[in-house]
Amino acid sequence: MKAKKDFKIEIMAVGSELLTPYFQDTNSLFLTERLNDLGMEVSYKTIVGDDWDDLALCIKQALSRAHIIIAMGGLGPTKDDRTREAFATVLERKLIFNKELLQRIEERFKRRGLSMPEVNKKQSYVIEGAESLKNRNGTAPGLWLDTGSNKIVLLPGPPHELKPMFEESVMPHLQKHKMDYKARKLLKITGLTESKIETLILDLYPDDPDLRLTTLAHPGQIEIHLSSHSIKSQEQADKRLQKLEKDILERLKENVFSTTGEELEEVVGNLLRQNKKTLAVAESCTGGLIGNRLTDVPGSSDYFLQGVVAYSNQAKINALGVSPELIEKHGAVSAQVAEAMSQGIREKAHSSLGIGVTGIAGPAGGTREKPVGLVYIALAWDKGLESIKNIFLGNRDKIKYQSSQKALDMVRRHLIKYEKKKTGMK
Amino acid sequence: MKAKKDFKIEIMAVGSELLTPYFQDTNSLFLTERLNDLGMEVSYKTIVGDDWDDLALCIKQALSRAHIIIAMGGLGPTKDDRTREAFATVLERKLIFNKELLQRIEERFKRRGLSMPEVNKKQSYVIEGAESLKNRNGTAPGLWLDTGSNKIVLLPGPPHELKPMFEESVMPHLQKHKMDYKARKLLKITGLTESKIETLILDLYPDDPDLRLTTLAHPGQIEIHLSSHSIKSQEQADKRLQKLEKDILERLKENVFSTTGEELEEVVGNLLRQNKKTLAVAESCTGGLIGNRLTDVPGSSDYFLQGVVAYSNQAKINALGVSPELIEKHGAVSAQVAEAMSQGIREKAHSSLGIGVTGIAGPAGGTREKPVGLVYIALAWDKGLESIKNIFLGNRDKIKYQSSQKALDMVRRHLIKYEKKKTGMK
Repeated sequence: MKAKKDFKIEIMAVGSELLTPYFQDTNSLFLTERLNDLGMEVSYKTIVGDDWDDLALCIKQALSRAHIIIAMGGLGPTKDDRTREAFATVLERKLIFNKELLQRIEERFKRRGLSMPEVNKKQSYVIEGAESLKNRNGTAPGLWLDTGSNKIVLLPGPPHELKPMFEESVMPHLQKHKMDYKARKLLKITGLTESKIETLILDLYPDDPDLRLTTLAHPGQIEIHLSSHSIKSQEQADKRLQKLEKDILERLKENVFSTTGEELEEVVGNLLRQNKKTLAVAESCTGGLIGNRLTDVPGSSDYFLQGVVAYSNQAKINALGVSPELIEKHGAVSAQVAEAMSQGIREKAHSSLGIGVTGIAGPAGGTREKPVGLVYIALAWDKGLESIKNIFLGNRDKIKYQSSQKALDMVRRHLIKYEKKKTGMK
Repeated sequence: MKAKKDFKIEIMAVGSELLTPYFQDTNSLFLTERLNDLGMEVSYKTIVGDDWDDLALCIKQALSRAHIIIAMGGLGPTKDDRTREAFATVLERKLIFNKELLQRIEERFKRRGLSMPEVNKKQSYVIEGAESLKNRNGTAPGLWLDTGSNKIVLLPGPPHELKPMFEESVMPHLQKHKMDYKARKLLKITGLTESKIETLILDLYPDDPDLRLTTLAHPGQIEIHLSSHSIKSQEQADKRLQKLEKDILERLKENVFSTTGEELEEVVGNLLRQNKKTLAVAESCTGGLIGNRLTDVPGSSDYFLQGVVAYSNQAKINALGVSPELIEKHGAVSAQVAEAMSQGIREKAHSSLGIGVTGIAGPAGGTREKPVGLVYIALAWDKGLESIKNIFLGNRDKIKYQSSQKALDMVRRHLIKYEKKKTGMK
């Protein structure tokens, strides 16, 4: 095995559409993740069109600088699909007709009641010395070739063809070159700013080069990506990671809402189900976003009873029973109105919990006293009521999103407290 | 000027984070769009980390294959930021200290009440012979260098720094090398499948290499990107494009909902406002998505009065006045219930138009008679009622999105008809 530093991997995406403003390669993110799992890092990514000279040049340069080349796209039947031919030409290897492959492609067409167009025949050629890789979801076979100095993988571009092929046919080859054992973890956090999190865990940032901690900030949500690798064993990699995770969780506590990848709406849904509680939502400035997020989760009809989008004052009055005097006195954007909305929807829907959100998403409508981004969120339950004043930054979308995040998080924290109390009472 | 075929442009993104599974370069899409506007095509895109040898190698190869190199990222103050140094080294040019630049950076810190950290000093060095480019939104200056054989642009990575810098300082340089005149247009279509559109406009696909037509399919929406270029004049480019656009519009008619970039919810909002109509929405399987999309548009409170997310039967009965017998007889997912929902919300909200949506978003809940993807959408107005049965394909998200698209489109088509009738009656 070569020293890691000198082991270079290149991912090459082939296709003229990837050089327009409209299309972007996303396969490489998936490939990188799986390569990282084997302890392999990507050194170069190249995107090139179907111009023969450009493609041949990029292949030549890739062969000279990378040990593993994973190229994708350009394996289709049309005359613009030239990845196979270009690699064969640069490598000075023949393309050899493979009868079995042709039959497989013909059968694929036959199963759909079609006969194979003549152009597809070229997909049954394999570069001399290469192993053909089965494509469960398309006609283009992939290819694995070890030339001694380079390992070359050719994959079709469509993600639903590329991904299973990589998992099933390429990973087993790469496993043999696995450089170490890897463990990964994703912590999702809400309710703390990125800088607050950094302060809380500053001394936990690992010195150990085999442990990595990366934070990623989204509106209303921070992600901490942890990874650990070991050249010894999976156990060692796991142990290191678990220690770091445990330390972080002790610092950040219930602000971490997910350690297994779930979205906040899934976490809230699970808590509602576990506690046999139901929810209804009265939204003004979020305009339906909270309902939309809750119902993105399959099975949400178990606990999500009803939503009302009460954009106008009249709707707040008619659909939620908010009193006109209250709106008159405090304004539609106020803690009092948010609270009345949360109580109103809870009563109308006969739900255990009710949420009320009212605010100014902008860009217009802000004043000095009530600026754009001011959002009141209230939560009503059988024995009480809570409301929070927030000032969110960003454009309309971001303000809406952060409001929905905060509202869902209020439900989450309430249910955690509720659970604790119940357990405490035993 | 070189022949176009031989004029190669490379975009290079520098940064180790771009070689992880978490970050993706999006700047290159913006840069490509602006280059295309000048009649320039991108031939290569490269992504490389901050490893010195890798970076130097990529620069060397870029210099050998591209006439214009636009590199971004790695101009910051830390020791990982080495793009400037790497280009200087490969080009064998000195880095020259620029006092004025240093003052500008120091002032930037001073304005925020800070003193400049020592590390930022390196940002005041310029490659010999290069012109420094002002950064309005950060400390890292950009750089323009014409070596005779290559034109090199270095830009900072953050989009809000890169974009204005490219517009203000790089475009004027590139304008001089403008290869032709360009016109672009984006048509957005709903209500037709991609293959139906292809059939309708097949003979309009231009043979002319100076005209380009690309279709892009999204769930519930097809985009047609048109571009035209001319080496003679802007007028010629515009004319060619207008002719093609006119021909396509004649074929696709009112299925084209936007020719100026607007989203469907904006188009619907404008139509509602123009016709002084208001809208209310009763959503079951879309769960708030329609309300959310409508309220993504600033000023939507002018016409969007109220939404109800009636996920449970009880909510359909209580909040929308749907009769329990109707649900019992036809099932919650039926044309009858969709219609009753649309009438119910229209009455409750006192709106001109009411939408009702009920369906099965899956993955569970489907039967042979009522499969996942079955969605009834109804529209109620003062003098009538219309409902459409749809079967959408895809996962839960896609079914929800296509349902919202169809519902908005029903409003759009209704308002166009309404407008026509009014005009006809004059």
